[in-house]
Parts: sequence; C-alpha cells; structure tokens
Amino acid sequence: MTEHSLWRFSRALHHALQERQTDQLEAVLDDNIDWAIYGPIDMFAFFGARHGKRPVIEVVRQITDVVRLHRFDRESLLLGEDSAASLMRYSLTSAGAGTPISVRVAQFAQFEGGRLTSLRAVIDTFDLVEQTLGREIHLPKIA
Amino acid sequence: MTEHSLWRFSRALHHALQERQTDQLEAVLDDNIDWAIYGPIDMFAFFGARHGKRPVIEVVRQITDVVRLHRFDRESLLLGEDSAASLMRYSLTSAGAGTPISVRVAQFAQFEGGRLTSLRAVIDTFDLVEQTLGREIHLPKIA
Repeated sequence: MTEHSLWRFSRALHHALQERQTDQLEAVLDDNIDWAIYGPIDMFAFFGARHGKRPVIEVVRQITDVVRLHRFDRESLLLGEDSAASLMRYSLTSAGAGTPISVRVAQFAQFEGGRLTSLRAVIDTFDLVEQTLGREIHLPKIA
Repeated sequence: MTEHSLWRFSRALHHALQERQTDQLEAVLDDNIDWAIYGPIDMFAFFGARHGKRPVIEVVRQITDVVRLHRFDRESLLLGEDSAASLMRYSLTSAGAGTPISVRVAQFAQFEGGRLTSLRAVIDTFDLVEQTLGREIHLPKIA
C-alpha cells in the first residue's frame, strides 16, 4: 500500500521548521501551489496567500527565521484519496528570546501526483498574538 | 446509500444559528458530547470547552444571542466513515447593530450512531476580534 502524500509533505515541512532545511519541501510542493495561512499580516508578513513554489518556500523560510519547532501533536486527522485535514498542536520557541509558544493549527491539504497543490491553514490567531506579545490584550465582554 | 451524519448535524446547527431553534440540534448531539471552540473567552463566554448536551445547547443559544447566520460556504470538506473535517466561511451579522461579520472556521467532527460525539473548531480569532470591535488593534511588526 502506497504511503499517503500527507506523510511526505508533513516530514518535509517539519524538517524545514526544525532544521531550517527546505530541500525536501521543494521536492514536495507543486510548481503552482495555492497556499494561505490566515492571520494578521501586519505582525507576521508570512501570513496570507501565496501562489507558486518560490513564494511558498520563502514563506517557510520567514517562519523559520522567527520560530523553531520543538514538537507537534496531531489531534485530529482525516485522509481522502488526494487530500488531508489535520488539527495540529505545535510547540514552538521564538528564535530570539526562546519564548515558548503553543499554537493550534487546522490544515487542509490537497495533492496531485504526490505533490502539494493546495494548503489552507486556520490558527487561533488571537491566542498566538497574545503569546507573541507576552501580555494580554484587554477585550470588552460582548457575550 | 445512507446520508453521512455530517449533513444532519450541519442542517441542525445552521437551523439553530438562523432560526434560534435548537430542537433539531438536541436530537443530533450525543449526551456525552465533547465540544471546544478555541477563542478568547474574555470577549465571548461561549468559547472554550464543554462536556455534555445541555452545556453545548447553552453555548449555541449564547451564540444566537450575539450573531445571526446569513450564509455559509464550505471551502473544504473531508468525510471519514464516522468523522468529518470542514473549512467553513460564515457570513454573520451582529444581533444588535447588524454589523456584518465574516469568519472562517475549521471544524473537526466525530460521530457515533449518527450523533455528534466530538467537535473541535479553530477560528482566525484575531480577525474576528477586530471585526467585532469595528477597529484595528495595533500590532508590532515581528517578521
């Protein structure tokens, strides 16, 4: 039984985030990949949409400039024939001060011929912003 | 072919969010449902974890007190035998001022005997907070 394409992509992504090596990732990304991580681009320029392999590799390098991946837990997983959805929990540290950051990320991936053609990632970004700032943002109670 | 459990839950949830009727939802939730929508509970008390049908119905009622669902788009979908992952885009209006709010939600659902036993939802919460406040929160540029 052939290994699902998710695992090769997952190994390549985590290798990039742990070792700052993007060579495996380059081999897994489709040339016309459609990519988006939703979040505040004012704080982190690597959020937002990208099209094509070079811009995506650049995004991953920008992420590795800021955080280092320590461990990940896959809390939910669904595999389709050429698609996958994962609920991940990443334990990171900031590259500068070494501050621990824990973030939950929902990932929706599509593959063609073993290569990643689409990725959508949703993050609990308010929590991420507060952890990055190292302080709480005061919010009014709405409900 | 039997309909996937997701569709009955999805209809019941959207009926609740559009019509403020939770009777269909009550019939779809497992008594011991494990539920979590990750987000800032200081602003919205309906965020966070709940266990059991009554607390979940209460959460949904709290949501319907604050927003009304206008439309939804399912941007990604994966179905397992007794599970589902969806990337949804909801168009809401605040129940008070009628302010339009657009929010992307990643949902991971598990079912047993046609009933929802687990739901995990991840939202781009920083964007949701800014839309709710009606103004931008200034962020330092980190990367």
